[in-house]
Amino acid sequence: MINNIGHTLKDYREIVGSSVISAIHANARELYGKNILHINSTYQGGGVAELLNSLVPLMNDIGINADWKTFHGTPDFFIITKKFHNALQGEKINFTEIKKRLYMQANKDFSVYTHINHDCVIVHDPQPLPLIEFYKKKQPWIWRCHIDCETPDKKLMDFLTEFIVRYDMVLVSNEKYKKSDLPVEQRIIYPAIDPLSPKNKKISRGVISKYLEKFEIPTDKPLITQVSRFDKWKDPEGVIDVFKRVKDENDCRLILCGSMAADDPEGYQIYENIKRKANNLIENKDIILVTSENNILVNVLQRSSDVIIQKSIKEGFGLTVTEALWKKKPVVASNVGGISLQIEDKKSGFLVEPYDTKGFADNIIKILQDPCLAKKMGREGKEKVRKNFLITRLLSDYLDLLNDAVILK
Amino acid sequence: MINNIGHTLKDYREIVGSSVISAIHANARELYGKNILHINSTYQGGGVAELLNSLVPLMNDIGINADWKTFHGTPDFFIITKKFHNALQGEKINFTEIKKRLYMQANKDFSVYTHINHDCVIVHDPQPLPLIEFYKKKQPWIWRCHIDCETPDKKLMDFLTEFIVRYDMVLVSNEKYKKSDLPVEQRIIYPAIDPLSPKNKKISRGVISKYLEKFEIPTDKPLITQVSRFDKWKDPEGVIDVFKRVKDENDCRLILCGSMAADDPEGYQIYENIKRKANNLIENKDIILVTSENNILVNVLQRSSDVIIQKSIKEGFGLTVTEALWKKKPVVASNVGGISLQIEDKKSGFLVEPYDTKGFADNIIKILQDPCLAKKMGREGKEKVRKNFLITRLLSDYLDLLNDAVILK
Repeated sequence: MINNIGHTLKDYREIVGSSVISAIHANARELYGKNILHINSTYQGGGVAELLNSLVPLMNDIGINADWKTFHGTPDFFIITKKFHNALQGEKINFTEIKKRLYMQANKDFSVYTHINHDCVIVHDPQPLPLIEFYKKKQPWIWRCHIDCETPDKKLMDFLTEFIVRYDMVLVSNEKYKKSDLPVEQRIIYPAIDPLSPKNKKISRGVISKYLEKFEIPTDKPLITQVSRFDKWKDPEGVIDVFKRVKDENDCRLILCGSMAADDPEGYQIYENIKRKANNLIENKDIILVTSENNILVNVLQRSSDVIIQKSIKEGFGLTVTEALWKKKPVVASNVGGISLQIEDKKSGFLVEPYDTKGFADNIIKILQDPCLAKKMGREGKEKVRKNFLITRLLSDYLDLLNDAVILK
Repeated sequence: MINNIGHTLKDYREIVGSSVISAIHANARELYGKNILHINSTYQGGGVAELLNSLVPLMNDIGINADWKTFHGTPDFFIITKKFHNALQGEKINFTEIKKRLYMQANKDFSVYTHINHDCVIVHDPQPLPLIEFYKKKQPWIWRCHIDCETPDKKLMDFLTEFIVRYDMVLVSNEKYKKSDLPVEQRIIYPAIDPLSPKNKKISRGVISKYLEKFEIPTDKPLITQVSRFDKWKDPEGVIDVFKRVKDENDCRLILCGSMAADDPEGYQIYENIKRKANNLIENKDIILVTSENNILVNVLQRSSDVIIQKSIKEGFGLTVTEALWKKKPVVASNVGGISLQIEDKKSGFLVEPYDTKGFADNIIKILQDPCLAKKMGREGKEKVRKNFLITRLLSDYLDLLNDAVILK
């Protein structure tokens, strides 16, 4: 459930303070009645849908006419664009003519029944990127890339660049993702979480107890949790190695919470590996695997944990870290990607090199054995997120952008 | 794959003749540049998406600006609206306040980021029906109901009627679905098939052989086929009884081809029942179950069959019958719902009472033993479809409608 709409900007006043709210209203003034169109590829599942589900209603709340349309693709199309996604992150791809053709055809088809008369178009991720080919441009087009594209497959990137150069601006999530040879203005917009969404909102002790009971999570020992897809880049097997070391020193339980997409054969394999590896530990509930896709449950697990771990090998931004920090949890995480932007080492958590099992274990033990440290880190982390990684800051960035792109054009 | 766009009206000239094409162009003249919005709940899977995928591009081809937006719902929302769908068809529903609330909230949420400035809005089926509550109406709104709602659950119907009465017109698929006590203009628009879609287009003998080989369908004996969801209303177990009787007289094989939605526990149960019932017959390939969702394969199976059976207990319109008739196949089908509109008994097929196993078997045998009759029926059936149930006729009906609703308003 990402059904969190009904929130208006004033609902965030208590969280971010009056001056932030007032600044947003002031910044929106030149944009009243402007028609902005967001296009992405899904309205359900995934971080981008979650984000737009919060962002677009807020844009409307402050006086912009923001539309959100989702792309229509065939199953074949989504198989291909999933491969594009992985190739942008550096995996190999067999980049055939038929893939290109299907990709282009789906974009052309969608353009036939999608009439655009807006003042600005914001296209999210690669699926609808070529749309721009099929319109007579009457307004600025902005491409928002949510993917880690630091080391993309070159042939694919060259192909996509043909479309990217038609855009008026490109938005990426990290300085490293900028391309020095791309003759288009590139800006950084950091991702953000919505503190009022089901995954992040405050929940009562009663609800927490109810969920822990329903999903049979015991709380007699400290809990360590990693929330992440069952994916090699999140190294769940490495997390188990860390856990075994920690448990030898300080008894505790581990929760691995991640979605298991039915159409992801790789994820299924990794899940099976984990089950084999953690065999006995799962039986006596020292390791608990949670695959239910329930945002309130994720919220409950994060709030019920003593330490959050994020042992990613590679990480775009790491919104699960943001979520944990926002809940005042000390986080021990890999010093990669956007995680390094969020955690100040030894202050709001610990940054460890991805393969340093001992480093992870030692720091987790340190936190488990020092409740004062845990509390202090949690407080620091929450403030960092409040200032930098909430949806209100994201909204504000978009207003700056639209003021530049639409008003000053 | 329903990726059949790229077709323009002139592609249908050879099939329906020049006068039909010219009449459509003439009928579109007053509608040039009008902005029409279709809203439905999915762009993938199901007859409505298939229909819009053909219809909306054609509307654009002839000069109308037709937009197509798909509703954004949560999984919970779709579970509820599936129950609504079944209840409109006469099943029981536990119609709770929370269901109502979720249904309304999803519609309200969608309205926030969907700005409507069109000349006419066409809403398909019950999912987005309440949208009309959340707009200041500036144009005619039309509700298109694709469901058999002859005997709906009364409480649900009363609730939905609150929204329906706000509409300017209601479209149903059958005279019987009109409600005498509904104070809104009601019109009938019969469904239609697209003769150029992957499911219906001409395919070469080579492709047919390739598919039959790939899916291991032997052609050494006559083939009888029913294409339908594994659903109690399609009576697949009854089809097996019919088949056993036929086989005693005239050796043949039966193909049951239907999709198996992973989220449909009822369908799964029925599939298991069939497997048990047909046990030996499946083993020696006298009965072949096909669950692949591949439109070309459906096309191939229909074209390779000697008789098509449609033993529905209840049927809205029965587009699988239309598809078979279009392929010049003799059809033996239940005399229910829209099937009776399509088949003229003993001329373009046989109509049988739904539970008359012997009647089904006798008529199938008659066709198998009389190739001349089979051929004659096939020709008759195809002409009936050409005149009445192709997408061009549907387009023409919509133009009449829009001329009345938009121009003469």
